Order: sequence, then structure tokens, then C-alpha cells
Amino acid sequence: MPETDNPTPRTRVVREPERGVYHRDEVYGILDEGFICHVGFVADGQPFVIPTSYGRKDDHLYIHGSAASRMLRRIDDGIPVCITVTLLDGIVLARSIFNHSMNYRSVVVLGTAMVVEDPDEKLGALRLLSEHILPGRWENARKPIEKELKATSVLRLPITEFSAKVRKGPPIDDEADYVYPVWAGVLPLEVVPQTAINDPRMDPMREVPPYVKNYSRKK
Amino acid sequence: MPETDNPTPRTRVVREPERGVYHRDEVYGILDEGFICHVGFVADGQPFVIPTSYGRKDDHLYIHGSAASRMLRRIDDGIPVCITVTLLDGIVLARSIFNHSMNYRSVVVLGTAMVVEDPDEKLGALRLLSEHILPGRWENARKPIEKELKATSVLRLPITEFSAKVRKGPPIDDEADYVYPVWAGVLPLEVVPQTAINDPRMDPMREVPPYVKNYSRKK
Repeated sequence: MPETDNPTPRTRVVREPERGVYHRDEVYGILDEGFICHVGFVADGQPFVIPTSYGRKDDHLYIHGSAASRMLRRIDDGIPVCITVTLLDGIVLARSIFNHSMNYRSVVVLGTAMVVEDPDEKLGALRLLSEHILPGRWENARKPIEKELKATSVLRLPITEFSAKVRKGPPIDDEADYVYPVWAGVLPLEVVPQTAINDPRMDPMREVPPYVKNYSRKK
Repeated sequence: MPETDNPTPRTRVVREPERGVYHRDEVYGILDEGFICHVGFVADGQPFVIPTSYGRKDDHLYIHGSAASRMLRRIDDGIPVCITVTLLDGIVLARSIFNHSMNYRSVVVLGTAMVVEDPDEKLGALRLLSEHILPGRWENARKPIEKELKATSVLRLPITEFSAKVRKGPPIDDEADYVYPVWAGVLPLEVVPQTAINDPRMDPMREVPPYVKNYSRKK
């Protein structure tokens, strides 16, 4: 795979083209930091956008869910989907209302998702999803059994047609506004893990494992 | 408007129906805590999902953007859209991999967005969007001028066909798994404002205003 892919007319960033990012390395960095995507698909002419978790391996995204899920059943026969991942990094306060903005990194992947039928690939994808969200958990927990695997669908989407849009840094004001007497800058936002809450049905003496206590999305 | 709306076949929560929420009060509470939505629309048979900010007033959602925005130009002539708002509250660690989950609150609104043409409603919607994201900022900053208003499009979507899906609380394991010797519980996640960063082009003696210093999404 080339390190840089050319965007298609559908994925090229038109507004604020300087925010467009097409390098796989940078796009994969965004995909690997997030773990919730929004899946878009069309049913009877109506678009639907549903949040779900995902994992990435090489040039593929994997999503999963109940085999009875309406979304998975709709998108598993090769209809076009859009998977969008958004990381919100901060609120950008300019002098003018007009130049207020957000700092963010978002990725859009267009394509067609296919059901993973091969049992080894399916189990591997479930492990990937688990380790993507919570590294270290797979080895600790009770692994899926046949009945559970049957009740789960896994879909694979090749990362072929994609782009990212990234805004970072301070506000950009109109030159004449820089003298306007108001605070300007960035309020960074971060998803921060809080103190873990024991399941009330668990022995309260059991210790919180390090992969929970030290959880962080930063690589 | 009735306090509870019946879901349509398109918005009824089918999987895990106990997670379905249709009360306007609860749905509006979710919409008012978030401020980033994902907008789904279809162009040439391909769904697109684009993140943007929003505001709510009564039974309407407002979004805005550049008048030159591809998305806004595509959805401003009455095509069906889906606006989804997702708040991620935590990672749910069960004893079995299969019963791992997320705590979240997500809202889906289906409908048709219309351009706001009336100048007063448009300015009001921009103020609403600004105050929804950062209450207190509008009065402090330089207000939009005619040229900026012309360069901005505002769209209105009635909140008529909608539902929310909510998961909260501890993991639910299969009864036989409760003896499995592993930590189980919830790792809560929260979007936390970090220390504000001054614009390097601003007088560094200018103080961070209270609406930035004490920023919180909780009402």
C-alpha cells in the first residue's frame, strides 16, 4: 500500500482544504486513538447513523454486533456505508463569533462492508476489537464460546477510499479583530477515565487490574 | 407537543428494547449535554456521515456552516437526513468477553432540514449555537456582521421522528459466569476540560473568563 493515497472526488476535503489529511499513517493514528465510530447506511432512501465500536487491522476496519442487529443485517449484503471517527480536541475561541471553531480530528471511510465468515478471522477480529478498546482484557476474561460466536456478526470494511480532516492550534481571527478586547485561545477537551466502579455482585476485595487503573487512549 | 412520542418503525429500538427511550424530556437532556452531532445524508446513493456542532431550541435542532459547505448545500433542499448525538459514559467489563459493553446515551433524529431564511431567526440560531457550546461567550465576542451572516448557512430540523438508546449500570453476566475469577465493573469516561491555552497573539495578562475556567457540560 502506498503511504499516501489520493483522495477521490467523494473524499477530498473541499472546504478548508488545508485541513485535509490523506497520509495513511496519520489517518491510522486517528483511527487507533478512537474506538467509537458512526456508521452511515441507507434503508428505503433514509440515511441512518448509528454509533458502534470498531477495531483496525492493517488496511481494514472491523465492526461487530448482534447477528440480529438491524444495522448489521442491512449493511452485510454489500450496500455502501460510511464510517466516521471523530476525536474532539477543544473549543477554539476567536475574537469574532464568526471565527470560533473546534479543534478536532475526523476520519471518513467509504466502502462496502462484508461479513467475516471464516471462523479464525472472526475470532481474531473479536479479539482485535476487544484489545483495541481495552488492551489486556482478552486474556483475563472468559472467551467466547460457539453459541456466542454464532450470535455475533463481524463485518470487515477495507480502508481504500478515505480522508481525514484536522484542525489544531490557536484561533485565526481577521487581522482587524486582533485588537478586540476579549480573551482568545483554546479550551482543550479530553476524554478522561474516572475511578473504576466495582460490579456490586463482585467480591469487593478483588483488585482493579492495571489495564483499567492506568487506562489511556494515547499511544 | 406531547411529553412522550411514539417511535415510528424507523426509530423504535429493536435490539435491547429495554434501552429505548422516547420521552422528550430525557431525549432533550441528552441533546443539551452534547454539542457535536453526526449528520447522515445520501449523495448519489452513497451515505456520508459528517461531524458538526448543533444547538436545540424547543422542538428544533439547528446546525450551521459555511454557505459553500458541500454538506449544507446537499441537505438544504429537503433531502432526508439523520442526526445522531452520542455521549459515551464508560466501558463495561463483564466476566465474559461476550457481555462486555459500553455505557452510553445516543439520540437519533430523522427528518428533513430546511434553510433558515429569516434574518432574525438566523441570527437567533447562531446565538443559540454559540450559547449551546459555550454559554456566556456571545456577549463577550465581536458579533457577526452582514458579510459573515451571508457566508453562513443555518439549517433547521424539526425533532419529530426520534428515539434515544441508553445503557447504564454494571455489567450483566450470564448467571454461571458470576463466579469467574476476574475483576468486573465499569470504567467511567468523561469529557474533561483542560487548562485553557492563551492565543499567542493575545496580551498574556488578559484573564481567562469564568465561562472558560469553569466550563462544564453538566447542567
